[in-house]
Amino acid sequence: MRIVQKYGGTSVGDLERIENVAKRVAKSAKEGNQLVVVVSAMSGETNKLIGYAQHFSSMPSKREMDLLLSSGERITSALLSIALNEMGLEAIALTGRQSGIVTDSMHTSARIEHIDTDSLEKHLQSGKIVIVAGFQGINREGDVTTLGRGGSDLSAVALAGALQADLCEIYTDVDGVYTTDPRIEPKAKKIDKISYDEMLEFASLGAKVLQNRSVELAKKLNVNLVTRSSFNENEGTLITKEENIMEKPIVSGVALDKNQARITLRGVVDKPGIAAEIFSNLAEAGINVDMIIQNVGEDGATNLGFTVPENELESAKEMMLKMKPAENLEFDRDIAKVSIVGVGMKSHSGVASRAFEALAKENINIEMISTSEIKISMVVNEKYSELAVRALHEAYELDR
Amino acid sequence: MRIVQKYGGTSVGDLERIENVAKRVAKSAKEGNQLVVVVSAMSGETNKLIGYAQHFSSMPSKREMDLLLSSGERITSALLSIALNEMGLEAIALTGRQSGIVTDSMHTSARIEHIDTDSLEKHLQSGKIVIVAGFQGINREGDVTTLGRGGSDLSAVALAGALQADLCEIYTDVDGVYTTDPRIEPKAKKIDKISYDEMLEFASLGAKVLQNRSVELAKKLNVNLVTRSSFNENEGTLITKEENIMEKPIVSGVALDKNQARITLRGVVDKPGIAAEIFSNLAEAGINVDMIIQNVGEDGATNLGFTVPENELESAKEMMLKMKPAENLEFDRDIAKVSIVGVGMKSHSGVASRAFEALAKENINIEMISTSEIKISMVVNEKYSELAVRALHEAYELDR
Repeated sequence: MRIVQKYGGTSVGDLERIENVAKRVAKSAKEGNQLVVVVSAMSGETNKLIGYAQHFSSMPSKREMDLLLSSGERITSALLSIALNEMGLEAIALTGRQSGIVTDSMHTSARIEHIDTDSLEKHLQSGKIVIVAGFQGINREGDVTTLGRGGSDLSAVALAGALQADLCEIYTDVDGVYTTDPRIEPKAKKIDKISYDEMLEFASLGAKVLQNRSVELAKKLNVNLVTRSSFNENEGTLITKEENIMEKPIVSGVALDKNQARITLRGVVDKPGIAAEIFSNLAEAGINVDMIIQNVGEDGATNLGFTVPENELESAKEMMLKMKPAENLEFDRDIAKVSIVGVGMKSHSGVASRAFEALAKENINIEMISTSEIKISMVVNEKYSELAVRALHEAYELDR
Repeated sequence: MRIVQKYGGTSVGDLERIENVAKRVAKSAKEGNQLVVVVSAMSGETNKLIGYAQHFSSMPSKREMDLLLSSGERITSALLSIALNEMGLEAIALTGRQSGIVTDSMHTSARIEHIDTDSLEKHLQSGKIVIVAGFQGINREGDVTTLGRGGSDLSAVALAGALQADLCEIYTDVDGVYTTDPRIEPKAKKIDKISYDEMLEFASLGAKVLQNRSVELAKKLNVNLVTRSSFNENEGTLITKEENIMEKPIVSGVALDKNQARITLRGVVDKPGIAAEIFSNLAEAGINVDMIIQNVGEDGATNLGFTVPENELESAKEMMLKMKPAENLEFDRDIAKVSIVGVGMKSHSGVASRAFEALAKENINIEMISTSEIKISMVVNEKYSELAVRALHEAYELDR
């Protein structure tokens, strides 16, 4: 098999861990796999460099930041290659440029435009293990660029796509994707296979195994993504096309997002386009509105409720108090969003009602609801959120 | 003026010192100079990375070492550029590759083959201060190479040559070149101007301001080299063509090299070619023989004496005991080499006799002598070596 492996900052956090990664890579190579290994900077390294830059400037040039920050991954790649050579394996470390990764010029958050695989193919054909410094490329002018947060995952997925790898393994310090957060529900189980779309819903709901950009790219390039731990031999979770998953559970998992706050406007000013004005102002200010509910109150006045990330509540509050779009404004931090995700929902009815029943049985009031084809999200009082997660986990028999 | 400045590891040893360098660069730029600034890695950084590599291998791949070690200079260059930008100056950090520095493929000790100055000229013409990551280039295959010890000095001198700079300023933590080591002779004076050839003799004699490779390159490219301190405003020492120095002192300075040991062979075996055999064996073992004296002893037997660096004495000793080229072998660590250097010697007679008299006056026995056109070296008992330096310093009135 041709495999792209990616090891994150924790997995290469110190010299012993790099040694451990070398052993894993060696094992996979000896099993006959063709390997490209993408590495992050040793954990803490990138933050140290950011701290250095901030000593000089609160707004350092993004071009120089990219030159600065790209060095961490180069160091890890060279060290891993040295460790593999010492084990008697032929390895070669390549920078983003040497791996043929060409990006646009959006320094610190560049997008990969093209991968020239000639050099990579040459090294792979000659039997070498190719170690790639993640998170980086060059633009058409030859300047170093970086890909932003989660950039090494993107490097790995893009390389797997360009090289038509059979598998792209993303190694972190967690075993894979779980039916829910095991700290909330100890009966949570690791999911063996999950579709791209489900994973995208999970990630946006706060399951931090993989960032959406990487999953989206994997979906686009049809890359079989595996997320697994570099600290044990467990199998991990395969993220793949829906068609590749034989047994589709109705609900794959339950996600919880506590970083939510709600703004309620009672008695909205009776003016055409007022709702559009509210939301375009919020969007311009970079505030991400998630769920929106509009209804007519008992007295006939229009009420409007919406949620924003908790850390954006203050700016949203300030804006609302200035706009005064309603008689009565309420701001509530003590809410949480509980969601069930599953591709099986598409072809099953009665999925939502089972959720509502489960929460009703625990006397949990559902304050807002939103649904998509493969997801049902419910806003509840934050203090009931863990209970809600456990109730839903049980209702869909996710511990079986 | 077009100036290439180079700041060594101590000068950029921490963030405050980089800030200090930024201020010096800014000052020079505001005086109207076109500037290329070559930087080393922050002191300690390169050794840290070497330590990392040695954790994995006692003989790490030199190609990977270059990728690893080149990151230190990249970090400093980005930080200095950020600091200058913050002061409102237009600066741009370039890697060895982006500076157009092309080397051969001798990883960890590459030689600069060619500098493509297009990009540098473009940035200079547009008024930018160009910051170059020292010590590095790329080879024709696009792999990162490093230039070995003193590599950043070489980068600076080569760039100054290629860009036809008026001056190449090498900043360290010492004020320049002194008539002798001020720790031995407090009356030692800083030399304002010195010729390339004198400087080469000084460097090879153990004055560690500049490495010979850099001085040789400066001589070849006709680069006016200035060595000065980044910690004060003193003028430093200009190293230039002999023709540029109006007042040529007979003796410019006195150098001391304590890292010397002597091997004496008494009653050398009467065999044709025995001397050639001895020295070719030593050369093959990588032992650097410096001074050689051969004479006939009182009993008619041939005696042979030569000096080697003290740290190579053990290997030389082992070889001699195996070869047994003489009846009697003596090994002496307690010697030192004292030398006077000066281009004025060429045109003056009686220079040597003044040295011999000065040492005789102090009852210091001269055990070996060797001379070149601009240098006289004398081996003395190590315990008299400081006294010898002071006596010679006074004899040639170097404190005037």
